[in-house]
Amino acid sequence: MLPGAGAGPHSLFITRDWVHPAIKASWDSAQADGRGTTLPAKSKECLIRMAVGWFYLSVMVLCSLGSTCILSTIYWMRYWQGGFAWDGTMLMFNWHPVLMVTGMVVVYSAASLVYRLPQSWVGPKLPWKFGHAAMHLLAFILTVLGLHAVFDFHNQRKIPNLYSLHSWLGITTVFLFACQWSLGFAVFLLPWASVQLRSLLKPIHVFFGASILSLAIASVISGINEKLFFSLKNGNNSYSSLPSEAVFANCSGMLVVVFGLLVLYILLASSWKRPELGMQAERQ
Amino acid sequence: MLPGAGAGPHSLFITRDWVHPAIKASWDSAQADGRGTTLPAKSKECLIRMAVGWFYLSVMVLCSLGSTCILSTIYWMRYWQGGFAWDGTMLMFNWHPVLMVTGMVVVYSAASLVYRLPQSWVGPKLPWKFGHAAMHLLAFILTVLGLHAVFDFHNQRKIPNLYSLHSWLGITTVFLFACQWSLGFAVFLLPWASVQLRSLLKPIHVFFGASILSLAIASVISGINEKLFFSLKNGNNSYSSLPSEAVFANCSGMLVVVFGLLVLYILLASSWKRPELGMQAERQ
Repeated sequence: MLPGAGAGPHSLFITRDWVHPAIKASWDSAQADGRGTTLPAKSKECLIRMAVGWFYLSVMVLCSLGSTCILSTIYWMRYWQGGFAWDGTMLMFNWHPVLMVTGMVVVYSAASLVYRLPQSWVGPKLPWKFGHAAMHLLAFILTVLGLHAVFDFHNQRKIPNLYSLHSWLGITTVFLFACQWSLGFAVFLLPWASVQLRSLLKPIHVFFGASILSLAIASVISGINEKLFFSLKNGNNSYSSLPSEAVFANCSGMLVVVFGLLVLYILLASSWKRPELGMQAERQ
Repeated sequence: MLPGAGAGPHSLFITRDWVHPAIKASWDSAQADGRGTTLPAKSKECLIRMAVGWFYLSVMVLCSLGSTCILSTIYWMRYWQGGFAWDGTMLMFNWHPVLMVTGMVVVYSAASLVYRLPQSWVGPKLPWKFGHAAMHLLAFILTVLGLHAVFDFHNQRKIPNLYSLHSWLGITTVFLFACQWSLGFAVFLLPWASVQLRSLLKPIHVFFGASILSLAIASVISGINEKLFFSLKNGNNSYSSLPSEAVFANCSGMLVVVFGLLVLYILLASSWKRPELGMQAERQ
């Protein structure tokens, strides 16, 4: 049986928040007419099935988009930039875009969406909190490796670090990510924090989570733009003549934007949220 | 008297949404104890005064930050790039960053925050809708002038248009802005749309409003980065040696990011929202 459907305490969970936006208006009018209180269990289950069905369709789209973002960055670096190595050369730099897109965008997004999984809506919250923190830690490790790749390449070539606006924004984003993870771990996972403190910090935690993803996407866009101006300089193959590499990398950048917008929509504006069960859930 | 405070129908408006996040936890505990229902009018007025006080402090910070973003872009173009003209030369291009930061970021943000003004929380909604649409139209006109400046410069110099990822993202953002304004005008200002349709589209309208601002900021960041790589090429004055122009323009870009994050926080995560009064408000 779906969580929240049918008899038992879960039937209490059926609230307006569970309904997909597309059917929220008819849900509201049913409530206004008083029909909401007498909706048969079958109709409720039908509404929830629709919400969950839409959710899994979105997850499928997200997985495909996220994988395509990573694969297209790998393909760009492999096919046009000579592939990968971990030796301080340009081939080491090529890990930088791949690891940043994978860590700061795709794995970060997956970690952020953990509480949108219907399986997380019922039962104890603690295992999901561990999953959320562990996946963000994986995203952070990939990000640090991505930074290591570019710093090592710069140092070997005697190129200054952190001069472009792309690098200023990127390093600020990683710093905010580190603060967000540490504060989240200290307040939401360790048991010392009061319910009041958690309630106070939760909307700020969610807002900064979404902001960090937005800043990561802005960093990726400025990074791809910068890399193409560096690589495509020759007359016949200049960026402004839009050779195949430029079209491919521009499309990859736009794909990252589409992926990010979909993640932010599910995170901030969709109805697929774990129902708030009050103090007990916050305490976990 | 403050809106929502004291006697009369406005006292109905005092909800959890009116309370600043900093005092939401104590508000909740007052509600849980049953004290919420017996809060004296003076305490309610005090809570609202705090919320409104915080709001005006944030507006002051926002106005200062927004003005600084515009003035610093003007200063950059005036002091390091030779100033302004409307003649198809590089001096015409210099209008591009100024008009885009003014239109797509600062005026757009001011227009988006119209419903967060406490004066808009009570009374008829229609005049505020006109204000919201008119300010967004002004933002759009400034944006189109900004695009005209760069296209005219490119055409006169025989430089191809729309090849960089910055330009792809920027033109997509302006296209989304045009769709958002037209759809918003048709559905929320013209009288034909049903209450159900407005309720259905409102969260999507708000989400895309915030997304367009985020994309505008990503476009500004990649644009400043690109411009600095174009301008600062000489050995002693290269971007990587961080001359004063680079530091100034990088700081301006980071200021735009800080401004944008503050606007998004007030728009999406703060408690300063017009209370939903149901069908009557949606009909207006």
